[in-house]
Parts: sequence; C-alpha cells; structure tokens
Amino acid sequence: MLMYSSLWLNYEKLMISDDVEKRAADILKNVCFVSCDGENRIFKSIKKEIETASEILLGEKSTISFSDKKEQNALSVCLVREDKLGKEGFRIYSDDNAFTIEANDYNGLLYGTFEFIEMLRLGKLTKEVNIIKIPDNPLRMLNHWDNMTGDIERGYSGNSFFFADNKMLINDRTVMYARAVSSVGINAVVINNVNVKGEASYLISKKHYDDVRKLSELFADYGIRLFLSVNYALPLEYGLESADPLDEKVCEWWKSKCVEIYENVPLLGGFLVKADSEGRPGPFSYGRNQADGANMLARAIAPFDGIIIWRCFVYNCKQDWRDEKTDRAKSGYDYFHSLDGKFEENVILQIKNGPMDFQVREPISPLFGGLENTNQMLEVQIAQEYTGQQRHVCFLIPWFKEILAFNTHMKEASVADIVSGRVMGNKNAGMTAVCNTGDDYNWTGHDLAGANLYGFGKLAFDTSLSATDIAANWARLYLSQAIGESSFAKRNGEKIVNTVKEILMKSWPVYEKYNAPLGIGWMVVPGIHYGPDVDGYEYSPWGTYHKADLHAIGRDRTDNGTGYVSQYREENKKMYENVETCPEELLLFFHRLPYNYVLKNGKTVIQHIYDTHFEGADEAVKLLEEWKSLEGLISKDVYERALERFIHQAEHSKEWRDVINSYFFRKTGIKDLQGREIY
Amino acid sequence: MLMYSSLWLNYEKLMISDDVEKRAADILKNVCFVSCDGENRIFKSIKKEIETASEILLGEKSTISFSDKKEQNALSVCLVREDKLGKEGFRIYSDDNAFTIEANDYNGLLYGTFEFIEMLRLGKLTKEVNIIKIPDNPLRMLNHWDNMTGDIERGYSGNSFFFADNKMLINDRTVMYARAVSSVGINAVVINNVNVKGEASYLISKKHYDDVRKLSELFADYGIRLFLSVNYALPLEYGLESADPLDEKVCEWWKSKCVEIYENVPLLGGFLVKADSEGRPGPFSYGRNQADGANMLARAIAPFDGIIIWRCFVYNCKQDWRDEKTDRAKSGYDYFHSLDGKFEENVILQIKNGPMDFQVREPISPLFGGLENTNQMLEVQIAQEYTGQQRHVCFLIPWFKEILAFNTHMKEASVADIVSGRVMGNKNAGMTAVCNTGDDYNWTGHDLAGANLYGFGKLAFDTSLSATDIAANWARLYLSQAIGESSFAKRNGEKIVNTVKEILMKSWPVYEKYNAPLGIGWMVVPGIHYGPDVDGYEYSPWGTYHKADLHAIGRDRTDNGTGYVSQYREENKKMYENVETCPEELLLFFHRLPYNYVLKNGKTVIQHIYDTHFEGADEAVKLLEEWKSLEGLISKDVYERALERFIHQAEHSKEWRDVINSYFFRKTGIKDLQGREIY
Repeated sequence: MLMYSSLWLNYEKLMISDDVEKRAADILKNVCFVSCDGENRIFKSIKKEIETASEILLGEKSTISFSDKKEQNALSVCLVREDKLGKEGFRIYSDDNAFTIEANDYNGLLYGTFEFIEMLRLGKLTKEVNIIKIPDNPLRMLNHWDNMTGDIERGYSGNSFFFADNKMLINDRTVMYARAVSSVGINAVVINNVNVKGEASYLISKKHYDDVRKLSELFADYGIRLFLSVNYALPLEYGLESADPLDEKVCEWWKSKCVEIYENVPLLGGFLVKADSEGRPGPFSYGRNQADGANMLARAIAPFDGIIIWRCFVYNCKQDWRDEKTDRAKSGYDYFHSLDGKFEENVILQIKNGPMDFQVREPISPLFGGLENTNQMLEVQIAQEYTGQQRHVCFLIPWFKEILAFNTHMKEASVADIVSGRVMGNKNAGMTAVCNTGDDYNWTGHDLAGANLYGFGKLAFDTSLSATDIAANWARLYLSQAIGESSFAKRNGEKIVNTVKEILMKSWPVYEKYNAPLGIGWMVVPGIHYGPDVDGYEYSPWGTYHKADLHAIGRDRTDNGTGYVSQYREENKKMYENVETCPEELLLFFHRLPYNYVLKNGKTVIQHIYDTHFEGADEAVKLLEEWKSLEGLISKDVYERALERFIHQAEHSKEWRDVINSYFFRKTGIKDLQGREIY
Repeated sequence: MLMYSSLWLNYEKLMISDDVEKRAADILKNVCFVSCDGENRIFKSIKKEIETASEILLGEKSTISFSDKKEQNALSVCLVREDKLGKEGFRIYSDDNAFTIEANDYNGLLYGTFEFIEMLRLGKLTKEVNIIKIPDNPLRMLNHWDNMTGDIERGYSGNSFFFADNKMLINDRTVMYARAVSSVGINAVVINNVNVKGEASYLISKKHYDDVRKLSELFADYGIRLFLSVNYALPLEYGLESADPLDEKVCEWWKSKCVEIYENVPLLGGFLVKADSEGRPGPFSYGRNQADGANMLARAIAPFDGIIIWRCFVYNCKQDWRDEKTDRAKSGYDYFHSLDGKFEENVILQIKNGPMDFQVREPISPLFGGLENTNQMLEVQIAQEYTGQQRHVCFLIPWFKEILAFNTHMKEASVADIVSGRVMGNKNAGMTAVCNTGDDYNWTGHDLAGANLYGFGKLAFDTSLSATDIAANWARLYLSQAIGESSFAKRNGEKIVNTVKEILMKSWPVYEKYNAPLGIGWMVVPGIHYGPDVDGYEYSPWGTYHKADLHAIGRDRTDNGTGYVSQYREENKKMYENVETCPEELLLFFHRLPYNYVLKNGKTVIQHIYDTHFEGADEAVKLLEEWKSLEGLISKDVYERALERFIHQAEHSKEWRDVINSYFFRKTGIKDLQGREIY
C-alpha cells in the first residue's frame, strides 16, 4: 500500500458518460508542444504531468511531438507571446478537432495543463470551450506550521512530511505535494512553523543550505517559490548583543546573512516573520515599531528580489481578564494602522481574516480598509484549529467567500479587491492559508478536509469561483471514480457528487450552530482548542471573554464600550454599532445583550442558543446519515476513514450542545420553550 | 556547590544555648557500642551517622569503642534482648553522666540513633530523659511516582533522582535520600510510578536486576525495604494471551517470575499495583474481581515473604456528566466492601484518605470502618497535586492528624487504630504518602514543603505527635542554624522557629479558604490541577461535579441523592446526612444548598464564599510578610528561594479569589455585603 494518496490528482477515469471517455481518449492521443524549450524545468513538469494523465486515463502513452506550430487532431501546448496573460495566465480553447493551451510563460502553461486535465476529467471540454484565466492574487501561499522535530503545531493529520528528527525530508511525497498544490494554483510555500524554535533557526545556515536549495528547486519545477519562517532574534544566536533593527551592526549582519543565503539558495522567495507575538521576539524589545523591524529585513533581502511577509498577529497575550478596557480585537489595528505607507515595497503585511484568531465566525479585520498604502495579504486557516480539527467536517470556502466579498468601504473595495492588488496597483499581495496537511495517508486526516486544501488554492487563483462549484468539482475528482462496474459508477456518479457537495456546503453552518453563539467565540478547551468549555478562556490572560452573567452576555465594542467599532470605516462602524443593523451572527461580538433580547426571527437570545444547539447536533447526525448513504458507492477505505469521523462528530456535537445549553440554563434559569432535556 | 541539600540532617550547631552546646560536645565525645556486630549492614550506618554528626557538631571525631557492657560518661548504643521493643522500637534514657540507646534489633538502634541526634540538636536531652518509642504503624511508606524517563508524574521539584534515560541512578544522593527518610522512620519505599509505563515494566527483568538489587541493599542499610510498582498486564508482554488471574498459565507465569525476581533481588519487599484504574489494566478485563487479581499475585510472592499492596483507587473515569445517579465517591467502597475478608494475608489494600482524590478537604473514605477483616494502609499525598504544587505553602500534617483521628465507629476505632493494625491485630498495615521529592537542590521545590516529608515520616512513626511540635522541630532543624555571629543566631533562634511554625500551621487553612468552598473540591484547571477553573471539571467524564446553577450548589449525597452517606457506619451516616450536624467544611460535599442557606456563623453560603476568598488571599499576603520578617536571620539561599514562591502565592491566591468570587457573583447576581470589588 502506498504511504500517501494522490489526492484529487488520482487521474482515474470518472466515467461521466461514454462521450466524455471517448473524448478524453481522443484528446490525449496526440500532444504537440509548440515553441517549448525541452530543458526548461517547468516544461519538464508539464510534459510529465501529461504523460502521467494519459497513461492512467488512456491506459497507454500518448504520442508526443515538438513543433513550432499547432497541430490538427491534437492537443497543442503553446508558448506564445501574449503579454496580457502575464507570467501565470493561460488560455484554453477548442478549434475543430483540436485543443490548445496557450500561455506567455511556462508557469501559465503549467496551470493551463492542470486546468485542462481537470476539465477533461470533469467532462467540461466541449467544442465551445474558450477560457482565459489570469490569477486574481499575485501570491497564493500556504503556511505550514511544521516543526523540525517532525510534529506540526495545530496539525491534525499526522506528522510533518517536510521534517523529521531535525532534518529535512525530500522524497517522492514531496513531489506529490508540489504537484497537488501547484495543480490548484499555489505559487508560494512556507515549510516551517512561524514559531521558529530549536533547529529551525538554523535552516538558514550552512547546515541546511543544501537541503533547502534542493527543495527550492523541486518547488520551482512546479512554479512554487519556497519561503522560510525566520527567527527575528537570530543575530543574538550568532553572538550579536542585540537584534535592534536600528542598530547598524544588526542591519549589516542581516545583509551579509542574506548574501550568504542567496549564494546558497538563489531561488528562495523570502521570509515570513512572526514578531512580538505570543512570546516571539521582535522590534518591540528594542523600543522600535513593527515597520522598523520589517524594513530592516526588507532592505537586507531586496537585492535578491526577496520578500518579507510580516504577520500582524500582534497583541498582549498576558492581559488581565478583570480589565474591561483592553480589547484584544483592537490590537492589530492599533499597532499597524499608524504605520500605513511606512513599509518598504518588498514588505507584505499578513493579516488574519478576523481581529481575534480563526474562530468559526468573526468580523473582518479592520486593517482591511484601514491600510491604504501598504501591501497586504489575507491569512486564513484551513487547518481547522477552532473548527473541528479535521475530525468534524467543516468546509471553509463559503466562509472565505464571505471574507473576500466584505466591503471595507475604503474606495468601496472588497477584501478581495485589496489583497489582489487591484485597488492599490501593487504586485506584492495575495492570500495565504495555514495548511492542513500531514503525513497521514490521505494528507488531511478527514478525507473531506481535502476539499479545503483544493478549494483554497482554486479560490485564491480565481476568487469569482462559487463555493458550490468548488465543492462539487472536488467531490467528483476525489470521490466519484469507478468502483465495480463502469455502468454502476456512471449511474451513481451524480448521487456521490451531490451528496458530498451537500455535506460540504452544510458543514460550516452546522458547526457554527453548535459552537459559541452569535459570534462571541472562544468557548473551547484552552490549549488544545477542541471540545466545549464555556468558561475555558473566561478568566485567562488571552483577551477572549464572553462576560456572561445571569442577566446578559457579550462584549460592548461600541464607543460606549471598548471602542473597537471605530476602527472601521464610517459605514461599517454604523452598521456594527447599531444593534438593529449589526449582522445577527456577530451580535454578541459587538454588543452586550440580555438573554431576553429578541432577534429578528422573534426568538430571544437564550432561546436562539437552545434552538441552534439542538439543531446543530441534529444536523450533525444527518451529515452522518448522508455519508452512510454512500456506502458501497465509493471506495471502501475512503468511506470507512471518513465514517469514523462522522460518527465522532455526531457524538461530539451532542457534547457541544449539552455543555453549552446546560451552562446557560444553569446560569439564567430560563427554560427551553420546547421543554427539551437540558442538564 | 553541592547538587543537593542535606535537608534536616545538616547537623549544624543550632546554638540554642551554651548549655546545650556543651552537652552536645560532652555526649558525643565517647561512644560505646554494646553487643553490636560490626559487620551488620545497619550497624555500619549507625556508626557512620554518629561519626558524621560528631564531626560536624563537635568539629572532631568522637572516640568509639566496642564493649559488652555500657560505659560511664559516654553514649552507649546497646543491642539488648528486650522483646517488647520489637524489631523497630527503641529506648533512650539518661543515667548519671551517661546516655543509653537500647533496642532489640539494629532497626530499632538506627531509629534510636536518629532520634537521639535530633533530641540533642533540639536541646531535649535532659538528665530526666527516658523514652520508649515503638512505631505505631508497621509499614511507613513512600510512593514515588517517578518514571524511568526521568520525569515525575505530579512532580513539582525537578526530575527523578532514581531514574534517567530509562536507567536507574544509584549515587551519593541516593544515600542522602535513604538517610533522610530513615531518620524520620520510613521503612518502605516504592521508587517507580504506579502508572507503570514503557521501560518500567522491565524493572523486574534481567535488564535491571543488578541495579534493583544494589538499590535494595543500599536501602536495607537504612532499614528500608524496596518495593516496585508492577504492570498487572505484564504476562501479555511476555507472549501470554491473557493476564486473567484465574488462568492457571498466568498464575504459573507469576510464580516463576517471582522465583526469578527473588533469586536476583532477595531483599525486595513486594509489589504495589494500580489495577483497573484510569486506563490501567486489571482483573476486570477478564471478568474477575479485585481480590482475584490481588490474591493471584499474593500467592506467587508469598514464598518470599513479599507483600502485595493493592490500590483501591478504582472508579469509572469515563462517566457521563449528565448522569445524576453515578457518584465517583461511592466507587471504592462499591468495588471493595463486598470483598472484605477475601484477601490473602500478604495483601494490603491501599486506600486514599478521601473517596475522591487528594482534594484540600474531603470526608474520610468509608472503606475505613467498612472493612473489618482486611489489611489496610492509608494513602495520603505530600506531593501537593491539588494543594498548591509546592509553589503555595501548604503544611498537610494538621490535615493528616484529622484523618487519623476520625472515628469510623467500627468498634469505635479511629483511622489510626485501623491502619496501625491495633484493631484487627494485623501486621500488614500502615501509612503511605505519595512523595514530594525531586532532584531540585532542596529536594522539594518549596523549601517549606520539606516539612511535609519530615512530618509524614514522624507522624507515621508516632501518630500521637502534634502537628505544631512537628512544625517547630522541623523549622529548628532545617532553618535555625547559625548565620553570622553565634550570639546573633541564639538571639533569633526562637523568632525563626516561631515564625516558620506559625506560617506552616496557618498554611492549610489559608489554602482551603481561597480554594473550592465547603468541601466541594475540583475547581482546578483540568490536567495540570493548578490554578482556579470553577467549571474545569464540571462537564468532564471524571465524576467531579459541583452542579452550581443560579440558585444552588453542591451534591446531594444523602439517600435522597446518590446515597453515598449509606456507605458509612450509622453514626457517621447520621452526622453527614443531616445538614445541621454535617461538619460545615464538608457541607457542599454532602448537600445541595441554596446560596442563601445560613451557616452557623450567621453568614449565607454565598457570603461565606466571598468572605473566605477575600480572607484567604489577604492571609496569603500575610504569610509573605511573615516570611519577609526572616530576611537576614536565615541563610540567604533558603530565604530567597522560598521568597519567590511566597510572592507567587500571594499573587496567585488573588487569582483564586477573583475567579471564584466572580464566577459566583456572575451566576447568582448576589452582591457582596461588604461591597468589595468582584469582577
């Protein structure tokens, strides 16, 4: 048995219809590369991918030729001079009995090839096809929180496949990884944890340069730039007395360090830095601001076209829970807003979608719309730290769609408009996801969590895609290959796709229902962040409080309270500060309300808590039942692996329901109108 | 600098008065051993101890002679035929200008010698001295929860000094340990964790026999028998298909294992077994009861005079918190009461003092008084798992005194009467403590936690000792040696002793005040058991619930509730089930009461919660102030090490106060009558 699956790149025949199968065979029989340099590293990956696909789909090798013009009755893969496609765009079109993939550069050809194979497998290669795709986001990135010891911070899918025993791993799984993430458009990867500890500080040292260079080259074969998380305080490890960004010695140290790094790893994309956050060192230690820190590194790495990605997750994690004025939600904006326009061109601020930390629901960070002259990147988390840890199914693409669509009212730009670089005309911008992979056979623990990895890449490349289409396409590619007779698979293909699509699309709302109510968040077991614990973070130093007493719950973040609402543009401020216009799913994030406050649906807050928790747990059972309806239709190992998790989710959602309902019943004494059992 | 202190055996001059000093010098000048075999292993320890003491106290070696009769103007250490002293008893008396230590065996002589040196240092060797001491408890034991990897489960004083890297450690520290615990009367030690994991399963195998034998011999030099915790499922590791205690193959396997063990380690005392508890294997896996399991091992080890110590900490740790009927407090009695009289003579049931688990306050386990024909040992915990983890000072001897004095109303016997063997006339009985030592310089993390180690041994030897005397003696021995000028020390000796004695005697009540109220327990952070978390265990599977809602708190354990009270003898049942006669410090353990229930002092339950928590935190500050009054009077390193912990305690007790008060204020809405700040 293989140690890892090939994810959605299994290239099995999907047997959608006889037509599709025949077309697939015909299309892949003859492949002609036009104007391609056979020695180009990305070209070699393209050719290998087409050969792999045709071998599995056709059961035989296709005939491959090289030419300086397109051929009839063939698939032509053409490098053309077509500036508007940029480095990564491509065009796919049909022309009589031929198909053509065109791009201005090999990166675009690679993406076009992956897209072409996917369309072919999904039965979408009609005679009318004529699409141009240019990625919406310049940077489409994954952040792995892998430690060199081999464990993964917030990893729920086994151990690292990048590191073990303080050494790097480069093997056939690494190639499979590069193919998979490249196939959905990822072009940048940070392989090591932002909390840089132990040996990882020395990834940028002679000890590891050879391995880092090898990996950067392997990634480059698939159009991916390798980035590394670095330890801001590294100079101290080398005997300097300070890491002060304004200290000339420190600047010189980093400059010569960068010279050394790029001599050894010329393809490196740059650094990701978590500074002054949760105990990490940073410029604050020297009385400097975040721009001082980022710019110092940016100037050192600029000669090599390197980029500094600087995280904005800076807050006081030793807050006094008694202190009513301090509000963690405000800290990102407080630290970075005044620095707008002060960062070097090759610095990007990486901003989490919400002001807290990857809760199932948060408002959008007010830094989006607050910064007008700064490179920005949206950080989301597909590792489901707070959303079921890849044991509960929680398809996050609908949530990311909402985030991207949020109107910041800065020039009426959405978050998508900002992080794409469209609004400010900047090229250093994009989207990143804290990744959900590990060395489990299926890469993601829960097989259905694979949809988040696939979906994030697809969405970052094309933010106009719908979550439903992404879910359906992933389901078809990953799950609907034939088992048993071909006619059996054809008959059941749509049922499989629809069932899984439905499960995925329901999953985030279901999870939200049995989680913390109305946007307040944080009712999780501290540390592990799994399972319910209403007061778990209530008396902690982490700045995450619901303030529930027997009368009311929620935090007043209007100007009468912490004043957080004033970090938004006027239109959004007005929306949030008025309890009537505040979106109800965020009501307790912005307002402190009595339990008998009546929502728009006529229910009180307390009854809403009871109802959503009963509903959520019931719906989790329905998800299990829906999954069970696929027994015998999909491969046994996928079915059973996921079944175990659906069963757990159905049980565990009852625990969520009962703990949260009991907590509020015991606190308020208000009975459930439907008289259901609360403990 | 030494790696470890010599605890209360520092043998410094205490400089109580010139008289005492002179007498010390005189007494130790000439020592005569009467009827002693110079080759006996314990004799050698006695001689060495006297030499060490005289060298430090006198500053020179004493003159040592051997004789067959006592000498004038000397200390005579005499082995006499005096059956009533038993193996471990001794007599110390004065006679003109001479002192005599007499015993029937070397063990008694050793204890007599330690007592003599201590009396000498404490200034208690008057001309009228004439004491006979025969230990109250046959077994006086320490249970170390040390893992072979070197860490200690619930260890708060560094790493193990018995194990590191899966190997045993035997060195000069081991000798110091044996001297120290023997000096307070400990005669049995389990060195490895009751949760036997990994390499520790193989302590009883060829791999480790040599080391185990060496340690057993080192211990034997000080009258200590070495015991080992064993893995009940060990036969499975050796290829047997079962560990069923009624399976003949299993019985034979253990029999031949014991033959092998005692061939290699003839001095081994026996095994300690945690079976069917918190995931440990046991006879329940095979449908057998606890007696089946214990007796099978007992029969295997009996030919070698080995003892099986079988823990009664058996309960369902995967309870449903919604289930109102199941009561963890009942489980020990439920599992063991019906087995009374069914255990082999060489089995001892080891019973924790309370029915739950080492909370700051619990009722006494109803197994004491419930078992009339079974060997029993009382298990207490000096490792302060739930009582401040050796960061808060919490002198537990007053609590152990209460436990020992509890009238079980089985033949009007106290717990002390039962575990001493007095009531049933059994010799396999005694007291054990989960130990609080580690490889910290001062052995116990908090220097004042040393008083618990000293005190436990002293109390187990002589249960009539008062906690105050134990505290004062420990303080004088450990802390009041001279710093600076001798006259300075003499002037301040009493202040030091009194201050420390006061701190120690106040410490348990102070800790109880700011902890969970009125005996309900368990308001700690789950897992680590440190710091307040009122609901931390409320919705957990551990069976530890306070059931607080906005109206009431506590568990009804009367016959109207879980029925736990009926496990006690009639007199105690009546006392506990009546809310008027139930001791108030246990009120919420036995009763569910509204917050406005009025206590005997006229305060409501809620006001009691507020008052005790404000008081407790204030008193913790006072403890710090009292400690500060010793600055300059005691050695700087002890002062500063403990100071850091007193400062932490003063801060952390405020956290306890505020979290618990805020929790109940938010839940009840009832204001503090004194209008103090609650959050």
